[in-house]
Amino acid sequence: MTRKNRKAGVDRRQFMGGAIGAAGATLMAAAEAQQPPAGAPPAGAPRGSDIESRYSAPPSRGPQLFRAELDITDCEVEGRIPADLDGAFYRVGPDAQYPLRAGNIPFDGEGHVSMFRFQNGHVNLKTRFVRNERYLAQEKAGKILFPMYRNPYMDDPSVKGLSRGTHNTHIIHHNGLLLALKEDSPPAAMDLNTLATVDPVYTFKGQLQSKTFTAHPKTDSRTGNLLGFGYEAKGHNTTDVNVFEYTPDGRKVWDAWVSVPYVGMLHDYQVTENFVMLYVIPLAIDEAQIARGGIHWSWYSGQPTYFGYFRRGGDGKDIKWIKGPERSATHMMGGFDDGKRLYVDVEMSLSNPFPFMPMRDGSRWDPVRGASHITRLSADVSQKNPKDYQIETLYPNHIGALPRQDDRYNTVPYRYGFLPCPDPDPKDPAKRPASCYARFDLQNRSSKLFRAPEGAQLAEACFAPKSANAPEGVGYLMGVASYAAQNGRCDLIILDAERVDEGPIATVKLPTRIAGQIHGWWVPGAAIPKKA
Amino acid sequence: MTRKNRKAGVDRRQFMGGAIGAAGATLMAAAEAQQPPAGAPPAGAPRGSDIESRYSAPPSRGPQLFRAELDITDCEVEGRIPADLDGAFYRVGPDAQYPLRAGNIPFDGEGHVSMFRFQNGHVNLKTRFVRNERYLAQEKAGKILFPMYRNPYMDDPSVKGLSRGTHNTHIIHHNGLLLALKEDSPPAAMDLNTLATVDPVYTFKGQLQSKTFTAHPKTDSRTGNLLGFGYEAKGHNTTDVNVFEYTPDGRKVWDAWVSVPYVGMLHDYQVTENFVMLYVIPLAIDEAQIARGGIHWSWYSGQPTYFGYFRRGGDGKDIKWIKGPERSATHMMGGFDDGKRLYVDVEMSLSNPFPFMPMRDGSRWDPVRGASHITRLSADVSQKNPKDYQIETLYPNHIGALPRQDDRYNTVPYRYGFLPCPDPDPKDPAKRPASCYARFDLQNRSSKLFRAPEGAQLAEACFAPKSANAPEGVGYLMGVASYAAQNGRCDLIILDAERVDEGPIATVKLPTRIAGQIHGWWVPGAAIPKKA
Repeated sequence: MTRKNRKAGVDRRQFMGGAIGAAGATLMAAAEAQQPPAGAPPAGAPRGSDIESRYSAPPSRGPQLFRAELDITDCEVEGRIPADLDGAFYRVGPDAQYPLRAGNIPFDGEGHVSMFRFQNGHVNLKTRFVRNERYLAQEKAGKILFPMYRNPYMDDPSVKGLSRGTHNTHIIHHNGLLLALKEDSPPAAMDLNTLATVDPVYTFKGQLQSKTFTAHPKTDSRTGNLLGFGYEAKGHNTTDVNVFEYTPDGRKVWDAWVSVPYVGMLHDYQVTENFVMLYVIPLAIDEAQIARGGIHWSWYSGQPTYFGYFRRGGDGKDIKWIKGPERSATHMMGGFDDGKRLYVDVEMSLSNPFPFMPMRDGSRWDPVRGASHITRLSADVSQKNPKDYQIETLYPNHIGALPRQDDRYNTVPYRYGFLPCPDPDPKDPAKRPASCYARFDLQNRSSKLFRAPEGAQLAEACFAPKSANAPEGVGYLMGVASYAAQNGRCDLIILDAERVDEGPIATVKLPTRIAGQIHGWWVPGAAIPKKA
Repeated sequence: MTRKNRKAGVDRRQFMGGAIGAAGATLMAAAEAQQPPAGAPPAGAPRGSDIESRYSAPPSRGPQLFRAELDITDCEVEGRIPADLDGAFYRVGPDAQYPLRAGNIPFDGEGHVSMFRFQNGHVNLKTRFVRNERYLAQEKAGKILFPMYRNPYMDDPSVKGLSRGTHNTHIIHHNGLLLALKEDSPPAAMDLNTLATVDPVYTFKGQLQSKTFTAHPKTDSRTGNLLGFGYEAKGHNTTDVNVFEYTPDGRKVWDAWVSVPYVGMLHDYQVTENFVMLYVIPLAIDEAQIARGGIHWSWYSGQPTYFGYFRRGGDGKDIKWIKGPERSATHMMGGFDDGKRLYVDVEMSLSNPFPFMPMRDGSRWDPVRGASHITRLSADVSQKNPKDYQIETLYPNHIGALPRQDDRYNTVPYRYGFLPCPDPDPKDPAKRPASCYARFDLQNRSSKLFRAPEGAQLAEACFAPKSANAPEGVGYLMGVASYAAQNGRCDLIILDAERVDEGPIATVKLPTRIAGQIHGWWVPGAAIPKKA
């Protein structure tokens, strides 16, 4: 990664803010949901790390947990909801049912789904927990039964055989259902209108062979097919990955099995017109740590990455793995191929992007090496055995994670991307930089910026096209802003996606905090069943 | 009212805080629900009144409305919920569906009910709007259709014939139902478990002749009968009052019609073993104001009060009206008779207790004359025509409204009362006094005090007996504390009612603000139907 464009003279504290905002965009959204409103560190936050300063306010008298499921009819709006905005913005994040055990991480809370349903210039809000097997068992027991993130050995004996899935990571629609996703288990299916959980272990009518299902499936830009994969697909600590494709009405049309060089966190992947790409990072399984009662992953400093790719539609035996330097990339912004070269745009950091993921060598988490930039990975797939893959930082001034695109362009060449990031050009370097959304135009490597109001922290953004046939990037960009100083009260901010720098066209003013978010998804009105 | 015991040297600002805490306990609970979280004055707040200073903080970026209906399973608790606390604390307050029109008052928001359901040492929270005729019509229209507090002439023509009731004032249980009450209309009946509105205009199977039903019915201490009344009972600006009694299973066993000297706000009344007592105050109907599009009431300075009483079980023709000085008394703490003398303990102020109720003579609202004290009214009912009634201030140091008692003693001699009040003996007179609950022992005129944590504002308290046969006052006192500095976040505080000065035995820590409260009610578990 080139760092030549990084400004000199940015002091460490300032940069820290940026790093937290970047590596931490995921973390913050998640932690928001279960940390005390102000003050005390979230349960399981690593002591002695640099993020501790974030929590150095006096201890709050508020509760440890959130968990409020809520309904608001005809939400209050500042500005005007566009009349052509018909559909729903669904989002999901962890919202711990019971306080996390010491050593656990904020990614382990129960999935709590929010739905902003837009119609006729109005918007209703509904939020519900995913009532999966884990949630229901814990509700019945009145206590936590799955006490450690992806550590099945710590489970209460009473839950043997139940799905461990929290379904707290991402949410998509498929075949008339809302699927809440956690990469260690099959989806949970919910009703698109009521958010009632209708199938806690959704296996596509038995077609899903993998024991897991990614939180980052893609939609084929030409067919609308659902593309996905599962890793640790034959169970805990297996190197097997199952890659698959379902028609919009739920028929499996392809799957293949491949094997990874080592069991790393395969949080996202990329599918293009011709290829499937997997990227293995050294946030890898740590059986010794698991045996000690800890979480699934540690960061293995100095270990290589692997850029893997194989032809779509085949049996996976053509997979090639290109070794590369230590890096992290947990989310893909978009990707495509031109038949000869395969391009995948990721958020990339030099090392562990998550302050709460242990460093296996016991070193201190490094916010600078943990900071992510939008980075283009590419490989010459016309070669029989490419020796290396290329790494190009696209936007060296923007530090951020959770990039998104117009999701109609998941598998084809695309032009626009969106990223939450701290202000790359803050006016007052003494202040914490504003939380921003950047809109990237990859054609000319330019960007526009929306700066959120002071005190707001933006979650991941989501793009909603103006209509099914609108050109790429023509539509609305929306995302939740939360205000720590207002007990986490939230607004939903709606921007013209082409003109994010002009500020909100509408702000949905919420009276309270709502459950936190990792990822969100737009579902057009036409895909939402009419209410019974 | 004697004021000799009032401390000299209390400065006006200090006393103002007390007055607001007193007259305003009702107001605050109600206004809480619809005022912006901090800063801006609530819609319709009178300008230039003394309460404006309360709202002088910088304008908030928060919404004008609240309206979040919520569910929390197994709420987080500090301390321990007593295992013998089995039942539910229901509460209700106004929560405006759409912003109040200029000139309207916070008493006019839609009724939003909360239920804290206690069982086996755990507590669940559920809140729902009363889906009455007004709410449903406005929901469908997407706007306010009843724009002014008890002014039917301002209604949208589309709502002709619908009940105007907001059902935002009090809530009781009767015959397996939860009845949400507003004194200008019949109750709305709700399901005790789900809070679904099952009958938006509940007329006791057609037995209710009055067009209205008080928000302050009583429970007969011997029979358990429901005792109530309606005023303006034959319609807008009628002097007719209908008084009635229903058995616990809903059979009307008595009613009578009487007529009041003038149409004042008959917010509460008293029933003893032998008598019914009505108290008419000069917060009276103002037809000129109504014609100008204003609210129902104005305060008529200098006008007399009337202490009225008649025998229970009769035809009401024996009613006697004793004229008295200008006073306000909106709530009764308790009352009883010894056959010869009738005693009623009220919150009493010299003048208008509500800053937002207009003074008809255009004078400025007076927080000192608007401050309430617990006061004993009594009359010698052995005389044929008593000339006057007696007024004795029982607790001159406690300024407060919304007194309560052990509700098993509604109609008989009682010993204990409870009152939210600002600290009568603050340690630091420069600070706003702590919000407190006083427990009064009327036998020896003593009191105990619970001081809420700094920054908390306590709503009305509610008493839950330890068991059906527990002695008077043996049980739990509970009430909601809200924190303005935490965006209105609330806790439910539970005290040993005999030892309120020892502090909470449990605090239910809520993650957000919840709908505000005017009044609340305890329903023992045995009276709540098992869930289907």
